[in-house]
Amino acid sequence: MSIIALRWLDPPAGPAIELADQTRLPAVESQVMCRDVPSLVDAIRRLVVRGAPLLGIAGAFGVALAAARGDDVFAAAAAIEGARPTAVNLGWGARRALDAYVRAQQDPDPAKRDAPAAALHEARSIADQDARACADMAAHGLALVPDGARILTHCNTGSLVTAGEGTAFGLILAAHRAGRLAMLWVDETRPLLQGGRLTAYEASRAGLPYQVLADSAAASLMAAGDVDLVAVGADRIAADGSVANKVGTYSLAVLARYHNLPFVVVAPVSTIDFGTAGGSAIVVEQRAPEEVTHLAGQPIAPEGSSAFNPAFDVTPPELVTAIVTERGVIQPVTAGNLRVLGSEP
Amino acid sequence: MSIIALRWLDPPAGPAIELADQTRLPAVESQVMCRDVPSLVDAIRRLVVRGAPLLGIAGAFGVALAAARGDDVFAAAAAIEGARPTAVNLGWGARRALDAYVRAQQDPDPAKRDAPAAALHEARSIADQDARACADMAAHGLALVPDGARILTHCNTGSLVTAGEGTAFGLILAAHRAGRLAMLWVDETRPLLQGGRLTAYEASRAGLPYQVLADSAAASLMAAGDVDLVAVGADRIAADGSVANKVGTYSLAVLARYHNLPFVVVAPVSTIDFGTAGGSAIVVEQRAPEEVTHLAGQPIAPEGSSAFNPAFDVTPPELVTAIVTERGVIQPVTAGNLRVLGSEP
Repeated sequence: MSIIALRWLDPPAGPAIELADQTRLPAVESQVMCRDVPSLVDAIRRLVVRGAPLLGIAGAFGVALAAARGDDVFAAAAAIEGARPTAVNLGWGARRALDAYVRAQQDPDPAKRDAPAAALHEARSIADQDARACADMAAHGLALVPDGARILTHCNTGSLVTAGEGTAFGLILAAHRAGRLAMLWVDETRPLLQGGRLTAYEASRAGLPYQVLADSAAASLMAAGDVDLVAVGADRIAADGSVANKVGTYSLAVLARYHNLPFVVVAPVSTIDFGTAGGSAIVVEQRAPEEVTHLAGQPIAPEGSSAFNPAFDVTPPELVTAIVTERGVIQPVTAGNLRVLGSEP
Repeated sequence: MSIIALRWLDPPAGPAIELADQTRLPAVESQVMCRDVPSLVDAIRRLVVRGAPLLGIAGAFGVALAAARGDDVFAAAAAIEGARPTAVNLGWGARRALDAYVRAQQDPDPAKRDAPAAALHEARSIADQDARACADMAAHGLALVPDGARILTHCNTGSLVTAGEGTAFGLILAAHRAGRLAMLWVDETRPLLQGGRLTAYEASRAGLPYQVLADSAAASLMAAGDVDLVAVGADRIAADGSVANKVGTYSLAVLARYHNLPFVVVAPVSTIDFGTAGGSAIVVEQRAPEEVTHLAGQPIAPEGSSAFNPAFDVTPPELVTAIVTERGVIQPVTAGNLRVLGSEP
């Protein structure tokens, strides 16, 4: 059974956005009900809802919610965009719904001037498009998965962060259904443990064979010959094919190369940012040291310790075997191949 | 101020072994007093005292304690050796003190038949030898540390695990005193966080410039050019120069090679096990999955999740730039060079 990370509720229960509370998973399965934009913004800030594709969808539904309530949609879009400044998808989704709203308002045909309906329609179509993209990525990527595959993954890339079955995790599920998945190795993904908490949760629900490991143990698995493929998602892909993703991804890419293993990135075309020339142009967000020096509110390191805590890292294209998108597989990963695929209709 | 991990107390306070309680560091600085072997065995099991060199010393003092009390020293040595079956140093230290005890008992000269004193003398000489080895390793290793060095380390290798200032950490302290240490990067070292908890504690007490990081962020630092040297300890070194050490060490060695950085192992000659031909002969201890799936007693991963949790990994000699011992630096790391140095007087 797939997990519903975000659900729109029409009247009489709504208008509202119901979110699976990812801060309490896997211990507690609960929902957070957002009946207005401030409560959605709070949920975004607290990471109740997270992950690039899903944040785009949440941003669009947030504008639709403001519109349905008769609130100021421009103020709503601005508030959503500012909820997490580095999450570019938030603003992108909010703006798409806002544009649809404004276009409807200005429609010469009075029958098409239902602006709240237009914003909601746009949010739904973003979600539908994302779900379709997940299915298409899984179908394309399956060609890269051998029989009896032991796949290593990092962070969380499934139903909790998309409107479908996920990016890398969607491919892993498809491999499982095709009878090709012998083992899913789940990097716990310090500091926030999205792998150990959330990917393990999704793997457990889907009945996959899986084991969790400390991130630093991945190299041992590779050296022992127990990994056939590394599959990860992406936060942003530069025009040259450099991949920004959760910290630890680059480490896996180097290890995969040393052990002659394919390193596959699964991400929709919308992740490719042609405005960013290469990896060096990507500014890496540094997060609070407390994510490393504390755990569940308790200090681990001595008081006053500082920490190097980048949110993500950048993998150069030469270490990426293939990028799987909803339009097909990019291999080898070159600026030219990215441009061809990214500019298709 | 150096940390005293283990202290022998003579009467009237003793006979007793006082241990710094490493399970409560860095939050609480406290001691555990062991007045008999069962309490020492319990402390070893609970990881109050840990680390290969220190466990050897603790084993020897444990036999001395039994001897001082008039207990059965053979039973004591067996109990100590069995406290943590994979910690070979425990049995080694206990047997050395036991041998000294037996030799003294059988001494033809009645003036030399004080067996308890002989056992204690042997324990003290093991500790003294370890402290001297630390100082000598630091002196030899300093030649490998450039000015303004940014050193990355893993796990905990300082005063908490030796009778001196440590193996890799002793070298780092020497570099600091020589004015050459610009930054110590401390891998937190999941799952048990010996880096984030204990190395950060030792670095903080010694006034070193340091920052903690998630293990998977080390690659980002290397790619950014912010690391000059990786320095780690060793649990065991095979005759061919393969290095068994805390899980994550091999990962760092591969990353160091990819980024053209020196990867230096600091370990006393006693760590070299000429009876083990190569890395493949080293059996890697698998530890409880709960170390990964739980944190501070609380579950992280979904119930029923299993984990791959090797205690250490094995780095092949071709990835080790140099092994620093108390007798000198082995570089390049070859079976021949190890043998020459290991067989010196």
